[in-house]
Amino acid sequence: MAKEITTRAQDYSQWYNDVVLKSDLADYSAVRGCMVIKPHGFALWEKMRDTLDRMFKDTGHVNAYFPLFIPKSFLSKEAAHVEGFAKECAVVTHYRLKNDPDGGGVVVDPDAKLEEELIVRPTSETIIWNTYKTWIQSYRDLPLLINQWANVVRWEMRTRLFLRTAEFLWQEGHTAHATKQEAVDETIQMLNIYATFAEEYMALPVVKGVKTESERFAGAEDTYCIEALMQDGKALQAGTSHFLGQNFAKAFDVKFSDKENKLDYVWATSWGVSTRLIGALVMAHSDDEGLVLPPRIAPLQVVIVPIFKGEEQLSMISEKVAPIVKELKGLGISVKYDNSDNARPGWKFAEYEKKGVPVRIAIGARDLENNVVEVARRDTKEKQTVSLNGIAAHVNKLLEDIQQNIYDKAKAYQQAHITNADNWDEFVKLLDEKGGFVAAHWDGTAATEEKIKELTKATIRCIPLENKMEDGKCILTGNASTQRVLFARAY
Amino acid sequence: MAKEITTRAQDYSQWYNDVVLKSDLADYSAVRGCMVIKPHGFALWEKMRDTLDRMFKDTGHVNAYFPLFIPKSFLSKEAAHVEGFAKECAVVTHYRLKNDPDGGGVVVDPDAKLEEELIVRPTSETIIWNTYKTWIQSYRDLPLLINQWANVVRWEMRTRLFLRTAEFLWQEGHTAHATKQEAVDETIQMLNIYATFAEEYMALPVVKGVKTESERFAGAEDTYCIEALMQDGKALQAGTSHFLGQNFAKAFDVKFSDKENKLDYVWATSWGVSTRLIGALVMAHSDDEGLVLPPRIAPLQVVIVPIFKGEEQLSMISEKVAPIVKELKGLGISVKYDNSDNARPGWKFAEYEKKGVPVRIAIGARDLENNVVEVARRDTKEKQTVSLNGIAAHVNKLLEDIQQNIYDKAKAYQQAHITNADNWDEFVKLLDEKGGFVAAHWDGTAATEEKIKELTKATIRCIPLENKMEDGKCILTGNASTQRVLFARAY
Repeated sequence: MAKEITTRAQDYSQWYNDVVLKSDLADYSAVRGCMVIKPHGFALWEKMRDTLDRMFKDTGHVNAYFPLFIPKSFLSKEAAHVEGFAKECAVVTHYRLKNDPDGGGVVVDPDAKLEEELIVRPTSETIIWNTYKTWIQSYRDLPLLINQWANVVRWEMRTRLFLRTAEFLWQEGHTAHATKQEAVDETIQMLNIYATFAEEYMALPVVKGVKTESERFAGAEDTYCIEALMQDGKALQAGTSHFLGQNFAKAFDVKFSDKENKLDYVWATSWGVSTRLIGALVMAHSDDEGLVLPPRIAPLQVVIVPIFKGEEQLSMISEKVAPIVKELKGLGISVKYDNSDNARPGWKFAEYEKKGVPVRIAIGARDLENNVVEVARRDTKEKQTVSLNGIAAHVNKLLEDIQQNIYDKAKAYQQAHITNADNWDEFVKLLDEKGGFVAAHWDGTAATEEKIKELTKATIRCIPLENKMEDGKCILTGNASTQRVLFARAY
Repeated sequence: MAKEITTRAQDYSQWYNDVVLKSDLADYSAVRGCMVIKPHGFALWEKMRDTLDRMFKDTGHVNAYFPLFIPKSFLSKEAAHVEGFAKECAVVTHYRLKNDPDGGGVVVDPDAKLEEELIVRPTSETIIWNTYKTWIQSYRDLPLLINQWANVVRWEMRTRLFLRTAEFLWQEGHTAHATKQEAVDETIQMLNIYATFAEEYMALPVVKGVKTESERFAGAEDTYCIEALMQDGKALQAGTSHFLGQNFAKAFDVKFSDKENKLDYVWATSWGVSTRLIGALVMAHSDDEGLVLPPRIAPLQVVIVPIFKGEEQLSMISEKVAPIVKELKGLGISVKYDNSDNARPGWKFAEYEKKGVPVRIAIGARDLENNVVEVARRDTKEKQTVSLNGIAAHVNKLLEDIQQNIYDKAKAYQQAHITNADNWDEFVKLLDEKGGFVAAHWDGTAATEEKIKELTKATIRCIPLENKMEDGKCILTGNASTQRVLFARAY
């Protein structure tokens, strides 16, 4: 077997890379900053994607697909937007290669230069709002509730598997509304959907909040976010929902006539989550043996491993297993019976453990006599001998317990890692020694925020939505403040 | 209402564009050659994608995701491959924009030039086989049965919505095998899956065949295809499955050790279908009123339109409709009750007709008294008064009938348009006056094939798999031939 996984205690960062690589979620590629999502990782993404897609559709959204390329001039139309994305984008300048006249393979054909360069989309507001201009004339055309599943490219200089890659997969919702209130409501609705998805499916507790001005999406009036905590005490932004005001409607001249035939600019939102969520999942729940996956999004929920000597034992076990598999499938549980003879049970155990399969059932010849199996849960590693009578119901209940336990554990960690700091020394000490979110007063200025970031590498993750108002003094400047905000070092 | 759809008789090509645009399948975009797939078009693609995805998974394939970008040097590694794709590819040369020092928005930053240019994938053999090199060492790692759903870019000079666009969505399967036979079997298996999908879901009869050498995929040893006929008598290649031999394994040095520890190059296949299939669907089945969709892939199968005056009538109708909707959904039928009051029934009828909804149910106040509804089928435009008792079962059966009828009609057209030609004059006359596939003898040389193409614009679509051997003489050169091949003008 390949090299073991580095422990979290040894080197958290290396542990993360090891888990991702050795559990077959992803691999490095030959293209700088781009990764290969391997079948196990992609199956996980499919479960997440399908769940979110259903939640989007249940709230009236439809999917569409817009071009990969954005004309360079489009980016410039919204001032903050271009400022945010121009510095890290892949630029297509030519549309043809030709044989190298000097005989060295193929070279770019200088005669095939584009009149206007195309940007590989880092996000699609501009190309979409340029399209919406032709789709929206009247209030009858609103709201437009459109989502897109797509790949996007941001030329990040320092990349990490899933967490920060030059190309990543995501969904981006882009909605258009007749009123400000409707757009704000949509922004909040999608934030809530993200939070529900994170908590109920990914078993990932999150804080819902709003970003400070300097952390806003480039072109947004308000950026709402869900923030999660990883096991090393760092925060991770797990999803954002933006109220875009009329910024993009103005940039692309998208007006509608209301019921009174009065023209006004359209109100907009956009919201997205990406394959980054897989990184969050790994960092929040996994352990030194590998992946720990919440059953609700695990591509494979149950594996059954026979322990046998010879064909005869195997066929007796297989006969007993067949109806169990059938019954589990009938309950909507994904299950695999691994009767391959190319590896020993112990090897298989380690392999499925590494890959995060929530429940493992082992069954041997003696178990047959006793009408029992051994059931092992991935999260706590507890093993139990369970009667074959009612095994499917037992497993079904166990999967629910595991889901809940993974969430409870992460929730307890989160609760223990939201700590108040009332002065600078406390603040720095908490960041250095405990990690997590530090709730502290801040004077509300971008200058102070920037200074704190310089001094501590901590950023304001969000102003929690359900914040308590409370008079206090900024931990850096001592100026007056009316509420605490959440600081953390972050991915 | 917007301008009517041009009839097929008036201008087939304009009819196609009108149907695609007015049925809200797609729209033009601001980026040359790229289209926007609108929600109705994307919902159709989702149905097709999900069906194919299930067929792929049922035959043991898994999904993964590889980078969008391909280093330029990778393309060059397989000689025929680069020859086929270099002339029409989008090339990324820079990774940053900067503010124009002359004040004109943003410009490409010359300091951010890539060391090696990246090609936006036109297909992924090279990046995937470069990855497979690290995944495959032994026969135990084989077969690899991987599929990818992705966007690809080919810089076509003349584009048509769905049929030929610079960017399109597709799936590309890339499999690796220990033996030649296994790879050939896989190639044929996937061809058969495509044919089954086309015939049973898209109601599109196809001819299965193999391409001549000059029509092969760039880098393949054999390209198998399914060829369909459109209503104007032109052929359309609807899917291809390639036996790649050891070409890519050799180009990327991918060897495996077999059970006897002997090293050999890995055998490969690749296979794909794309959003082009939507174009085929439109051209094969639709009529002068708009889309005609086979029920099995129609995003919406049944629409119910109430005919009412005033709230009271509407609420009586709605009460009657609710259990019908429920019962239809219970049968797995997608149904919409359109009780919106912003359009009259006649307008709604035309709208759903244009969008190809297979069954429309209309229900008015008088129908309530008589316990009946009016059921209209989209394909034949027949209307029937049907009792509310057993309406769900009736509709279910009707959807099956429609599926079969659409297929039968297309099959009859196809059968009537495969015609033998035994000499040049017959051949040209058939192409010009009748269209469809012309089955003719050909001397087997690329030169003759090319000459026929020059003279008639007809290409050899395929050598049918179940071809009858028969001595004859090439229609152009008179040289000996042992079988007929299918010629056609094609999209």
